[in-house]
Amino acid sequence: MNVRKIDHLGLAVRSADAAERFYAGVLGLPVTHRETLEGMKLKVVKVRSGDSVLELLEPLPGEEVISKFLAERGEGFHHVCFEVADVAAATTELVGQGYRPVWPEPRRGSEGRLVNFLRPKETFGTLIELSQLPG
Amino acid sequence: MNVRKIDHLGLAVRSADAAERFYAGVLGLPVTHRETLEGMKLKVVKVRSGDSVLELLEPLPGEEVISKFLAERGEGFHHVCFEVADVAAATTELVGQGYRPVWPEPRRGSEGRLVNFLRPKETFGTLIELSQLPG
Repeated sequence: MNVRKIDHLGLAVRSADAAERFYAGVLGLPVTHRETLEGMKLKVVKVRSGDSVLELLEPLPGEEVISKFLAERGEGFHHVCFEVADVAAATTELVGQGYRPVWPEPRRGSEGRLVNFLRPKETFGTLIELSQLPG
Repeated sequence: MNVRKIDHLGLAVRSADAAERFYAGVLGLPVTHRETLEGMKLKVVKVRSGDSVLELLEPLPGEEVISKFLAERGEGFHHVCFEVADVAAATTELVGQGYRPVWPEPRRGSEGRLVNFLRPKETFGTLIELSQLPG
C-alpha cells in the first residue's frame, strides 16, 4: 500500500474556537480553514504543521460520533488520516488480507476526497482514515 | 513559537512486533529504527510516514507510564511530538503565558534531543511533546 504521509490528525474538542486559541495563538500553527459542516453537524478548524494538518472537530447539537467520543473519552486525539494513492485499491488489498474497513467501497468525504476507515480493534487501537487527493 | 512539523506520533501498544506487522507489513510504512531502551523499559519500533514518524511503544516489565496508559485507556494514540526550533525558548514562552510544562527546563530525551511536554489538561486533551533536533 502506498501511504504518502500523515494527511491530518483529527482532534475531538468541545470548542474549536478555544482549541484554535491554543494551537494557533499559542503554538503558532497557521489556520488554513474554518468551516461549519451542516450535514455532518461539525465545526472544523484546520491548522497546519509542516506537511500535515490538525483538524479541530467540535460537534454541533445533534451530532453523534464526536459527541459520543467526547462523552466516553473526553477531548483529544480522535483519528489519524494517511494520504494514500488509491483508496479503492487500498480497500481491496485490506479486505484481501482479512481486514474489515468501515465501508466495502470508499466514500466521498470532505473536499470530495475518497476516504475509508480502519477500526481501532484492527489497528492496535487507532482509528485510521485513508484518504486520496481528488483528481 | 516556531513549530516546524509533526515529528512523530507515539502509539502505546502491547506488542511492538505485532503492531509493526500491521504498520509496516500491511500499511507498508518503512521501519526506520528498532530499539530496546533499558533505562526507560520500553521497546520501540519507528516507522516513517512522509516527513513524520510513528513510534510504536511497548512497555517492558516494570515500566510505569505506558503500562498505566494501556491499563486505563487501552492501545492507541499516546502523544504527538512537534519539532520546534528551540525547546528552552518555547518552555519560557509557555510559562510566560501561564502554561505549566512538565519540566521547568527541557531535558534530554531519546537521541540526545532536548524535549519537554505539555499536559493534556492544558492542550484540549492531547499530550504534546516538544522536541528540538540536536546540534
